[in-house]
Amino acid sequence: MATKVDWRTLASEKKIKQLASIPKEWLDRLATAIPPPNELDVCSYPRVCGLLNGRELEITESDVPSLLLRVASGEWTAYEVTAAFCKRAVVAQQLTNCLTEIFFDRALASASALDEHFKKTGKVVGVLHGLPISLKDQVNVQGLDSTIGYVSYINNPSERNAVLVEILESQGAVLFVKTNVPQTLMWPETHNNIFGRTMNPNNRSLTSGGSSGGEGALIALKGSPLGVGSDTGGRVATSIPASIRIPSACCGTYGLRPSYGRVPYAGCANSLEGQDSVLSVLGPLCNSIDGLKLFMKAVIDSKPWTQDPLAVCKQWNDEEYQLADHGSGKELCFAVLWDDGVTVPDPPILRGLEATKEALLAVGHKVIDWVPLKHMEIYKCISSIFTAGAAEDYDAVTAVSGEPIIQSMLPETDVLTSEPPASKPSSATSLSAYQLWQVQKKRRILREEYLRHWQDTVTVTGTGRPVDAILCPVAASTAPPHGATKSANYTGVWNALDYTALVIPVSKVDQKIDVKRERNTFYNATDKAQYENYNPATFANAPIAIQVVGRTLQEEAVLGMSEIVDAALKARRP
Amino acid sequence: MATKVDWRTLASEKKIKQLASIPKEWLDRLATAIPPPNELDVCSYPRVCGLLNGRELEITESDVPSLLLRVASGEWTAYEVTAAFCKRAVVAQQLTNCLTEIFFDRALASASALDEHFKKTGKVVGVLHGLPISLKDQVNVQGLDSTIGYVSYINNPSERNAVLVEILESQGAVLFVKTNVPQTLMWPETHNNIFGRTMNPNNRSLTSGGSSGGEGALIALKGSPLGVGSDTGGRVATSIPASIRIPSACCGTYGLRPSYGRVPYAGCANSLEGQDSVLSVLGPLCNSIDGLKLFMKAVIDSKPWTQDPLAVCKQWNDEEYQLADHGSGKELCFAVLWDDGVTVPDPPILRGLEATKEALLAVGHKVIDWVPLKHMEIYKCISSIFTAGAAEDYDAVTAVSGEPIIQSMLPETDVLTSEPPASKPSSATSLSAYQLWQVQKKRRILREEYLRHWQDTVTVTGTGRPVDAILCPVAASTAPPHGATKSANYTGVWNALDYTALVIPVSKVDQKIDVKRERNTFYNATDKAQYENYNPATFANAPIAIQVVGRTLQEEAVLGMSEIVDAALKARRP
Repeated sequence: MATKVDWRTLASEKKIKQLASIPKEWLDRLATAIPPPNELDVCSYPRVCGLLNGRELEITESDVPSLLLRVASGEWTAYEVTAAFCKRAVVAQQLTNCLTEIFFDRALASASALDEHFKKTGKVVGVLHGLPISLKDQVNVQGLDSTIGYVSYINNPSERNAVLVEILESQGAVLFVKTNVPQTLMWPETHNNIFGRTMNPNNRSLTSGGSSGGEGALIALKGSPLGVGSDTGGRVATSIPASIRIPSACCGTYGLRPSYGRVPYAGCANSLEGQDSVLSVLGPLCNSIDGLKLFMKAVIDSKPWTQDPLAVCKQWNDEEYQLADHGSGKELCFAVLWDDGVTVPDPPILRGLEATKEALLAVGHKVIDWVPLKHMEIYKCISSIFTAGAAEDYDAVTAVSGEPIIQSMLPETDVLTSEPPASKPSSATSLSAYQLWQVQKKRRILREEYLRHWQDTVTVTGTGRPVDAILCPVAASTAPPHGATKSANYTGVWNALDYTALVIPVSKVDQKIDVKRERNTFYNATDKAQYENYNPATFANAPIAIQVVGRTLQEEAVLGMSEIVDAALKARRP
Repeated sequence: MATKVDWRTLASEKKIKQLASIPKEWLDRLATAIPPPNELDVCSYPRVCGLLNGRELEITESDVPSLLLRVASGEWTAYEVTAAFCKRAVVAQQLTNCLTEIFFDRALASASALDEHFKKTGKVVGVLHGLPISLKDQVNVQGLDSTIGYVSYINNPSERNAVLVEILESQGAVLFVKTNVPQTLMWPETHNNIFGRTMNPNNRSLTSGGSSGGEGALIALKGSPLGVGSDTGGRVATSIPASIRIPSACCGTYGLRPSYGRVPYAGCANSLEGQDSVLSVLGPLCNSIDGLKLFMKAVIDSKPWTQDPLAVCKQWNDEEYQLADHGSGKELCFAVLWDDGVTVPDPPILRGLEATKEALLAVGHKVIDWVPLKHMEIYKCISSIFTAGAAEDYDAVTAVSGEPIIQSMLPETDVLTSEPPASKPSSATSLSAYQLWQVQKKRRILREEYLRHWQDTVTVTGTGRPVDAILCPVAASTAPPHGATKSANYTGVWNALDYTALVIPVSKVDQKIDVKRERNTFYNATDKAQYENYNPATFANAPIAIQVVGRTLQEEAVLGMSEIVDAALKARRP
């Protein structure tokens, strides 16, 4: 019998291989320009590090529509666009540790093929022609690993592309990097035993969020014009949901959580496979809503249901995007969820909501208060569903390598430096199938109640319609210090209800304005810990974001309404 | 402590109440005209029993569109239409025992209200104005029981209407009866300890099928112009799926199994609640495809997703109905599944498929063979999912009344006459949540494989498209004698894959043509038992039907293609 290779050896070999996939010349040039760890805000670094020339900076700072237009007009080649983003992604990697698989050769070869096609035919191959797209580690690309943070999955390259990869490439997208995730995918921060921790480029002492934390950091630094993340909703021990939205909010990007099955998931690696009730979904992160919309329309127009049996057979609906069911967007009624009764948002979060409310009122929309309904019960339901079989799932995967299951995201518990506690996640929460069904039944009833609750707002909006969209925090806090995330009830509830939710960055923490407010009563221990955790200095420069929440399978309408919210906010900025 | 009432007492009191809900005068008039039990084919009895006059016969034998047209034009009133169907439903009840709740007073009052509205405004209230609709027992109507065959649920009237009931009534439908089901809903025959057994009107020694067997018998006798059934897919002990389609095929009606969530299910009683993986669906049974289409369009146009969070937000798509994705229906390529490798169909079933093939070739369509992929594996998967928690579910429900769980559909084991074996359904098949996830994961992979398999047919159709629809048996046998159903793999596989499937009646068993064919090799014991069970005399006059199968959420296209199949078949009838 062959001696089993120690998991630490496998992990460090993988990390060495990763480093070798970056051009040595770039690393050398960056080596002398790397900021010290105590330099927290590194957002401006890609502009000043010297690796990118003026044209490369212009390319990487273009928005998605202009980028596509300039490639489609022949002004820029797919090759030079890709090369520019490869460089900038490496800068982002050196600053925040956001990447996993790096495959520039493959990317540049496919960009060249696109240019060749364009030269020959004068036509683009599809609506994403020449657009570099980054992928969360779990999206399978043929020939590359999808470790999803597990040592057990090292050296196990994907045999075939995920359906989404097939679709993106058929539309001309250039895939070039995969991005970091937490071990198990089920954490709202990003750290694992192979690639380590991803930091927040706005303040490296803060988390980038998770589980799509690599994407959040990369997109925020413009190391990729558009990224694919995933949004699931629940972490075993503490029931903290992992998502697209938390990294978007932490890092200051836009991000969309579509409904179950709107974006094809087939062929992706995942945790808790076979859990058919609260489905993980794929969705885009980007620095503008334009990009989110473009991605969604491109994917849906490719009829993903002909390749993924779980992709919903629903065509892109332009009337819904034009807000046909929302009075054509003329006088919308938004409702603000200020406080979900589980955790009270920190001062910067409330300021973000207030600014959004004012901005919308200023352009003639209505804004009322949203009354939350049983958010704690809903949150507990999905937590029970995830924990029903999670311990066995994690055990089965980690047993292969012997790697321990990470117990905390706190830096001092990093297993690469100090051995974690021997205890495994409790399986005390494991359920029988019948018990699981009882929880799932309860959740179905809560979904029915919530829908009626929403419909009933027709009596208070004055528009003749129920509330058009809910505005709410993405989390009770802006990006917390590493390991300090206390809760994520403001995202998890929408996973449970399968509502479409879009994150819009609003502002950043300002130590002068966002002072701590006196509070003496608390909903629960988490709420208290959350309160005690807050002080404006710790959260300096952290982005502030809001969520725009619409109903199930209403991606078009949520994009349309979010554009209105975003424009209103931008109109009031100095 | 109050003495617990014996379950037999509760059951017989309920049955007595049911009888009291039928006008005594009608019962008296029918009493003298009831055919003896050995009169098997009772299809012509409603015409000759004398309870319905000429106009009532004309009304009850109209197809759905003409019926709606004549009410909308004022030629017939909703009241007289409803009254005629009430009478005919009672005839059907006396012949086949197909009803559960009978609520003629409520129906006639709501018909009168519709007539009043029409008289005042000259307008119909909706597209179903004045159409009586029967409901499978599980569809909750406020104030009425939904026992779904369980004594425990007697005297437990629904507090609110199911979402579908709200929608149908808002469109002007008149609900008037609920129909019989098997105890647990999970049998492909129809018998329970409260209402007893439903018989097949074509041959009362045969089953009406199940679990929508009451609907099958009622619609076949034209005791209702349109009925709502449900289609689930699995019976614990023997894994025999219960459906809309088996009763449709057994009784000779049309029936549609839509995809998960296309018709709102919220507010219905059900078995195995919280089982979120292989979802039960509601769908229509009718004597024409017109009626199925009308029902689906009316329901979808009512935006059920605003009332049921699990209803898919997908509007009715007329382009899909016009077969935009299928070459506008000009040269379709159908593929016939002659044999699924699990059970070989009986001679009449094969004759039905051959007739369909010839009819389609005659009008210029292509017909190739369908190669089944892993049907046994797929079938086993959904069986494991159902049995994962079913024993506990049945125990929990029956414990309330002490009623035993029915072990067999054989008449000689009827618990009302002889006590059943003391043994309960085995919980040896019960799973943990994690084990259930592993089965669900396997099923997801099988769904992906099946979709690729279907897509790959693009190379053999010659149309430039994959196969447009699969034609296949509804079961390996026509309606078997009571208790003799051996398998239902030809329906269950499509529940597992969530494909849209429509049943079309083709012919009836002809003892001269459908002779037994010599076979010596068998796939398995069920296949052998199925073969040995067949002889043309036993199955005399049993309807022969086929299924037209399309993809998930393609109800519009399946309706469109089924109309083409149906017209082709009708064109060749003498």
